[in-house]
Amino acid sequence: MVPRYSRPAMTALWEPEAKFRIWFEIEAHATEKLGELGVVPESAGKALWAWWATDPKIDVEAIDAIEAVTKHDVIAFLTWVADNVGDQARFMHQGMTSSDVLDTTLAVQLARSADILLEDLDRLLAALKTRAQEHKFTPTIGRSHGIHAEPVTFGLKLAEAYAEFSRCRERLVFARREIATCAVSGAVGTFANIDPAVEAHVAERLGLAVEPVSTQVIPRDRHAMFFAVLAVIASSIERLAVEVRHLQRTEVLEAEEYFSPGQKGSSAMPHKRNPILTENLTGLARVVRGAVVPAMENVALWHERDISHSSVERFIGPDACITLDFALARLTGVVEKLLVYPERMQKNMDRMGGLIHSQRVLLALTQNGVSREDAYRLVQRNAMKVWESDGALSLLDLLKADDEVTAALTHEQLEERFDLDYHFKHVDTIFDRVFG
Amino acid sequence: MVPRYSRPAMTALWEPEAKFRIWFEIEAHATEKLGELGVVPESAGKALWAWWATDPKIDVEAIDAIEAVTKHDVIAFLTWVADNVGDQARFMHQGMTSSDVLDTTLAVQLARSADILLEDLDRLLAALKTRAQEHKFTPTIGRSHGIHAEPVTFGLKLAEAYAEFSRCRERLVFARREIATCAVSGAVGTFANIDPAVEAHVAERLGLAVEPVSTQVIPRDRHAMFFAVLAVIASSIERLAVEVRHLQRTEVLEAEEYFSPGQKGSSAMPHKRNPILTENLTGLARVVRGAVVPAMENVALWHERDISHSSVERFIGPDACITLDFALARLTGVVEKLLVYPERMQKNMDRMGGLIHSQRVLLALTQNGVSREDAYRLVQRNAMKVWESDGALSLLDLLKADDEVTAALTHEQLEERFDLDYHFKHVDTIFDRVFG
Amino acid sequence: MVPRYSRPAMTALWEPEAKFRIWFEIEAHATEKLGELGVVPESAGKALWAWWATDPKIDVEAIDAIEAVTKHDVIAFLTWVADNVGDQARFMHQGMTSSDVLDTTLAVQLARSADILLEDLDRLLAALKTRAQEHKFTPTIGRSHGIHAEPVTFGLKLAEAYAEFSRCRERLVFARREIATCAVSGAVGTFANIDPAVEAHVAERLGLAVEPVSTQVIPRDRHAMFFAVLAVIASSIERLAVEVRHLQRTEVLEAEEYFSPGQKGSSAMPHKRNPILTENLTGLARVVRGAVVPAMENVALWHERDISHSSVERFIGPDACITLDFALARLTGVVEKLLVYPERMQKNMDRMGGLIHSQRVLLALTQNGVSREDAYRLVQRNAMKVWESDGALSLLDLLKADDEVTAALTHEQLEERFDLDYHFKHVDTIFDRVFG
Amino acid sequence: MVPRYSRPAMTALWEPEAKFRIWFEIEAHATEKLGELGVVPESAGKALWAWWATDPKIDVEAIDAIEAVTKHDVIAFLTWVADNVGDQARFMHQGMTSSDVLDTTLAVQLARSADILLEDLDRLLAALKTRAQEHKFTPTIGRSHGIHAEPVTFGLKLAEAYAEFSRCRERLVFARREIATCAVSGAVGTFANIDPAVEAHVAERLGLAVEPVSTQVIPRDRHAMFFAVLAVIASSIERLAVEVRHLQRTEVLEAEEYFSPGQKGSSAMPHKRNPILTENLTGLARVVRGAVVPAMENVALWHERDISHSSVERFIGPDACITLDFALARLTGVVEKLLVYPERMQKNMDRMGGLIHSQRVLLALTQNGVSREDAYRLVQRNAMKVWESDGALSLLDLLKADDEVTAALTHEQLEERFDLDYHFKHVDTIFDRVFG
Repeated sequence: MVPRYSRPAMTALWEPEAKFRIWFEIEAHATEKLGELGVVPESAGKALWAWWATDPKIDVEAIDAIEAVTKHDVIAFLTWVADNVGDQARFMHQGMTSSDVLDTTLAVQLARSADILLEDLDRLLAALKTRAQEHKFTPTIGRSHGIHAEPVTFGLKLAEAYAEFSRCRERLVFARREIATCAVSGAVGTFANIDPAVEAHVAERLGLAVEPVSTQVIPRDRHAMFFAVLAVIASSIERLAVEVRHLQRTEVLEAEEYFSPGQKGSSAMPHKRNPILTENLTGLARVVRGAVVPAMENVALWHERDISHSSVERFIGPDACITLDFALARLTGVVEKLLVYPERMQKNMDRMGGLIHSQRVLLALTQNGVSREDAYRLVQRNAMKVWESDGALSLLDLLKADDEVTAALTHEQLEERFDLDYHFKHVDTIFDRVFG
Repeated sequence: MVPRYSRPAMTALWEPEAKFRIWFEIEAHATEKLGELGVVPESAGKALWAWWATDPKIDVEAIDAIEAVTKHDVIAFLTWVADNVGDQARFMHQGMTSSDVLDTTLAVQLARSADILLEDLDRLLAALKTRAQEHKFTPTIGRSHGIHAEPVTFGLKLAEAYAEFSRCRERLVFARREIATCAVSGAVGTFANIDPAVEAHVAERLGLAVEPVSTQVIPRDRHAMFFAVLAVIASSIERLAVEVRHLQRTEVLEAEEYFSPGQKGSSAMPHKRNPILTENLTGLARVVRGAVVPAMENVALWHERDISHSSVERFIGPDACITLDFALARLTGVVEKLLVYPERMQKNMDRMGGLIHSQRVLLALTQNGVSREDAYRLVQRNAMKVWESDGALSLLDLLKADDEVTAALTHEQLEERFDLDYHFKHVDTIFDRVFG
Repeated sequence: MVPRYSRPAMTALWEPEAKFRIWFEIEAHATEKLGELGVVPESAGKALWAWWATDPKIDVEAIDAIEAVTKHDVIAFLTWVADNVGDQARFMHQGMTSSDVLDTTLAVQLARSADILLEDLDRLLAALKTRAQEHKFTPTIGRSHGIHAEPVTFGLKLAEAYAEFSRCRERLVFARREIATCAVSGAVGTFANIDPAVEAHVAERLGLAVEPVSTQVIPRDRHAMFFAVLAVIASSIERLAVEVRHLQRTEVLEAEEYFSPGQKGSSAMPHKRNPILTENLTGLARVVRGAVVPAMENVALWHERDISHSSVERFIGPDACITLDFALARLTGVVEKLLVYPERMQKNMDRMGGLIHSQRVLLALTQNGVSREDAYRLVQRNAMKVWESDGALSLLDLLKADDEVTAALTHEQLEERFDLDYHFKHVDTIFDRVFG
Repeated sequence: MVPRYSRPAMTALWEPEAKFRIWFEIEAHATEKLGELGVVPESAGKALWAWWATDPKIDVEAIDAIEAVTKHDVIAFLTWVADNVGDQARFMHQGMTSSDVLDTTLAVQLARSADILLEDLDRLLAALKTRAQEHKFTPTIGRSHGIHAEPVTFGLKLAEAYAEFSRCRERLVFARREIATCAVSGAVGTFANIDPAVEAHVAERLGLAVEPVSTQVIPRDRHAMFFAVLAVIASSIERLAVEVRHLQRTEVLEAEEYFSPGQKGSSAMPHKRNPILTENLTGLARVVRGAVVPAMENVALWHERDISHSSVERFIGPDACITLDFALARLTGVVEKLLVYPERMQKNMDRMGGLIHSQRVLLALTQNGVSREDAYRLVQRNAMKVWESDGALSLLDLLKADDEVTAALTHEQLEERFDLDYHFKHVDTIFDRVFG
């Protein structure tokens, strides 16, 4: 986790205190159920919850100090709780293993992280929708290979992003369901020393599903899938970030990351407004993607469990969740406040002197009886003049002045071929598909 | 694609002929609809289908020869079709772009690949279920960190694998739905020159969903998700493969890849039966995983499209699908024919002289009134003797001969603590969860 | 390997025939030495070389047919050789294992691949040098964050690429040395049944170093390093490819991939020249990079060897080498024939109306006694006018017309600050560093 | 960075204070040289160094507070220095850009990290050498595919590791040279406003080479190479860690991570000593490898520079260096204190009843005139009996009792074939190659 790329709510989820709180809840829910089953006194669970109701401060330092002696994190925690709760605490953890606590806690942390990320996505989607509708019919040039192709609208670009992040949302819902499972199955997962009813109880209280078959650990294919989905979301962030970076290039300048009116440009160069937020997002996408291969390498644990996954997850768990949360929020800000320059979009579209319409003229000529070869020759000879003028000449003007052309098409018919709206007749269709 | 790691049905899907067949279907369905809409003569679609009904041979070489001249694969194909169908063929492809054909074809190939992979998974699941039930109560030692922990059953190991591949199946169903979309939206995806009804028609005929917003290309986050799921499946394959490799180690030898009775061992060394199938699967998992990062890097195309994704997909499309199909089938064979050695499992479990039961004795002593410290001391002093004997002595025998122990526990009570069945009382629960 | 992204010389290296030729050479050199050592008759090696001197056709199909029976590739090959050479062939392979042949062969293939790639790099470096010197003083705008910054020369861009690929060359020399080792050490690498002198002889004849300690296999850290270097080279290819793609964007158009004068643009749109070669290179870079993680996962083989690396290498060996060879050659072609448009570079640089020189004016004002705040205000008020005119106004003209400015700087002094050459005074220094 | 996987010296290198110290040095060296060149007063550099000689505390909080206002880290730092040094400080940074400071600092941090890692490697190599020589002739079974193959010595295993980490050392020396360059070239790298002599001076003082051509930033192919080398080293760590994990398995138990004599085993199970250090190393290797792809994706910056690399490096710079340092130190500890059990090695080797020698007997029979088929039959029939006895019978005993065998080989000749030393006759050769 790099502080400057983190936000408080998500970061808090990954701090020791949050972890210890979940540990306590798991132990207390389990003890409660064990009491119900008659395995331990019912008073034990009650004592734990009574103490918890006092909203005790989690003394991370004290727990760490105990761990320094016991060399075991869960035992250190249990000791600290016992020091606070008293005698009844000795019934905690009966029949359980550390993994029951650790893996279920990770499930809670990832599920809650997913909840935050889903909210992030909702905010991003809302921003995209607002800006898409605002620019539903703002004409701009569509580019394939970075080269002007045919007109689109700026709203269509954002509608695509909306559809893409909607898919990301569905994927995350899927991945959250995958990861949100509870294992309280004891050593090597056989429930030899703990009733499955305890697991069911803890799961229900924490809003998790029961892990159908754990082997002391929750199987890591779930985590691999989860991090893969985060990585796909990161890749979609990169796509939109790269789009903004392209649009902000000096020569294009169709949109810019927000820059407050009073803000000074880089010293005396007012054009020097750098798309640093989206450049940063491009880098953060690489970071989040970096988690996907280690998470997949974690799947093939040896036999019932080895602990090689643990160190990996100490890095990628917080790093991927915190960074993606930050990135989604940053991207939302970029979208919400993006400066959009429709005039410049029009100007860029016009810089080809109307060449982007040449195909429609070609088609019109052939439809009006000119042979394909002749039509091509007529359009091409005028198009080349426009091209060589670097956009100073207008294709429509030249065509109107070309007798061979006007023999087949009236000025009105020609003008009609240069109509932008022709390209936008199905924008409604697409918006209906995307925004319902 | 490496021929030795491929199977015919999947490979055929990725061969030029299959691709051209899909191209034709897309073009013919589109022309048919264009005819219905009155954009082209209805006769055009009919002519195409009439020719297709003759089951014409796809002459890949001829098409390649045309491409060598036109430098454009789709045009080459259309030319070849026109050469065969005649005049009516000129109405094909109206308002469409190459990407409409190429991207929709890739969607069909990936969806059909997913169908094959789903069948592969079903076969693997069936094999796992059969073997799991066969060995539901075959005792074997559970191992954490590669070290003997407590007993499990061999069926439980396979039940875990079954549950894991069931999740893989769900993921693939999800990923298949993601990838199975159709785009026939023309240049930069605006439908300027083609009615959305054509797309809807082609989609319906090919069993695809309509891509809500394409930008000439189908967005690549879909493909990234698809390959990520293949990579997760590959990682689960690796897990089971590594398990078999471990079980087949000379010192463990609890299971072996199938080896026919008459088959000669490596010259005169009958123990030299190598787990080469599962080692191979370990490698193939790495190969399939290798597709995931390139697929994610493909997401951030520039503006409405660039063609950087194309070369990547020419590699990873066939490679990942063909290799995973092969790997799933190979793994299924390994599972179906796996030689399982229950006696050896028992023997390995026994080699610790019963130490794996020491914790239960400890608990029994404390339950019968011995202090925790004393109980520990009593168990420990006998356990150490067993350990130092390298399994020659038996913990149960030593405990029975230890007066301090028998003062608290009868021989019968001691024996009960060495009962394997204690560990298996919830095997039914777990099997019910997994197999329903 | 995808045929369209391959070139014949490199591809041939990875075809079965090439592999069998190397196998033969290893076996024949080894037999020759074994003869010298008196382990086998000297006639054996002589018989093998005598047959080889007849330049026999390698009958791949026949060998494959034998393998279909023996299920062992090296034995199949030895059988085929024996069928051709006769009785003396039975002395081949004495004391050797298949890995001795396979791993040494892979070393030869990778070393020879490196040789081809080094030639590729030399050609690319030559092209870069030529074009760099051609455009050593061609002014163009330097861009940070995609935004105009200060002037550079087009030659400097190419000099950077030259320096970068020179480093790539050094890395490849390093990686080639790493990979070019020979192991003929027998089972588990102890030389129990083969004298180390045989290894030394084979190594010397094949131009390899002796592997200091093999364990039946050559350790895979060597291969991991090799593929990592290929991946770094691929990343540098991507960098230059992305540069060209940017320069060819419609709004920038400072350079273009070659387009023959007579060549037709996309139908009637002469501007529709797509940078498809460099887009393709961007994708191929992803493919080559895709090899790096699997190659690293291959390092941790179990004990003296397992065979999980083998399937991975059957993919990434040919794929990475063949694709990188193709990519380097394609990039060389792009560089050699790149259409460079100095006028357009100048025009783009001028579109900011001279704003890129504003910092130098600011500095000059302060040096001539104007306070920092006043200087900033003076430059800023003129700069903003230029900026708002979208480049129609010229900063120099406005400054000359600003009395407060001219009170501190003469027209001549102002003009001097707009001198491009100021920025190029150290181009020679940099070129000397790079080209020596 | 995860605190529990970090060591103080390396971590300190990546803390803000260390960074600011390097910043200061760069600025002071540059100012000093600018003074010499007459660009600024010589007093400026002197004032800076005079203040530095007082060993001032770097007030990170104060600098951060300034950055909160200026939104620019380098300016914040310069302001803080100026607040401390006074008026002369205003001459700092003349003609420089932030990247000059930031990139050169990263070079220093990576070079110093490399120095620490080189020391780590030296310690690891020393430990490997010591243990290798200690066990130079400790017999143990060589395993291919996890299956017993032929004898090796434990020293040979460690010699291989020594050779592998020696290569890693060479790679790191190479990578360190790659990364240790200095850029002080000003905006877009043209030296327009700063003399190359300043760069040369700063480079010389910091022990760096001059970057031949920077473009405001140091090209990122250098960093990609650096992180790739760290990832290869991590993969070699994984290999040795996996070897130890295998050796410590309950059924194998030929070696164990150190466990102090007085240390309690897991409660009453003395065999429950888990190889958690090497499992942890396996995970840490995945983490370090996770840096390699993001580092490679950083190479293709746009034009002269974009800032997408920066966020990536804030993660992988400290994470990869700190984690690798920790991992190397941990591995060194594992090697130094590894518990090695030669008797168990012998016992495991013997469990096959001498089958590992069957090939040598086979060869001896044929050399003494028995036909290949007969020899095979004779060895096989005895070998199968041994195999079926699960190691209870001895192949040597059976052969001695087989008349057909003894007709060809005397007891003495047979015994000779079971001589382990036969396999070790070239251990000296290999050790000479590795340890010189």
